[in-house]
Amino acid sequence: MNLPTDLAQFLAQPRIAVLATVRRDGAPATTACWYDLQDGKILITMYADARRLPNIKQDPRVAMTIVGDDPYQHVSLAGQVVESWDDPGMEVMDRLSMRYMGEPWQERVPCVSALIEIDRWHTYGLLSEASDYSSKGSAS
Amino acid sequence: MNLPTDLAQFLAQPRIAVLATVRRDGAPATTACWYDLQDGKILITMYADARRLPNIKQDPRVAMTIVGDDPYQHVSLAGQVVESWDDPGMEVMDRLSMRYMGEPWQERVPCVSALIEIDRWHTYGLLSEASDYSSKGSAS
Repeated sequence: MNLPTDLAQFLAQPRIAVLATVRRDGAPATTACWYDLQDGKILITMYADARRLPNIKQDPRVAMTIVGDDPYQHVSLAGQVVESWDDPGMEVMDRLSMRYMGEPWQERVPCVSALIEIDRWHTYGLLSEASDYSSKGSAS
Repeated sequence: MNLPTDLAQFLAQPRIAVLATVRRDGAPATTACWYDLQDGKILITMYADARRLPNIKQDPRVAMTIVGDDPYQHVSLAGQVVESWDDPGMEVMDRLSMRYMGEPWQERVPCVSALIEIDRWHTYGLLSEASDYSSKGSAS
């Protein structure tokens, strides 16, 4: 997917994202996380014992909101995990840690990394007006 | 519910929250929002045409993550909407706008306001260690 320039630029900054997954009982769960853009997808990683991992395995649909430096700029995305893999060497964690902290991650813990394909988004405060997009035709 | 002091103090600051709801198709949706604490519950409001309103009506279970000024401080809550009401006079919106902006909300738009009862939480970076709580016995 080709993201609009202002959205791609917003996401290119190392901002803290809030990721929502769905638990087995259907309730939502949220957590703060790092991310990076990779070929128009969202790259995330997590400790292999993270609670969101079984959620994603059960239901790959996720949503994410990223608030800007100006808190009245924010972007909400939704999509699904299209790929996940064991990442015992913490390659993605180290990449994200370099992006956010300027150094590799200190702890060594088995991780699982994943790519999220973006199906829809809503931006607020980035352009002169709010912008909506859905690959499925309806942004709701 | 009596929240721990550090959690209550964190939430007492006017921070931007990310609220997750579940859509009719079971997928999660997230949005940035204002909130306030009221008697240990989370008070929110939304325009009556907000997409999250039918989500909440269909499934009152929600989750919320609030990132601190230090982005490595964050709190994740989960619970359910236990009360919602038409708020045509925007009483809650004006209260929240005063809290966040120091003045009433400029636009006049019919709103719906709601109270979220907190069932579980996870804090990160607030205390010396992460803290977990669930009223149901398991914080997962």
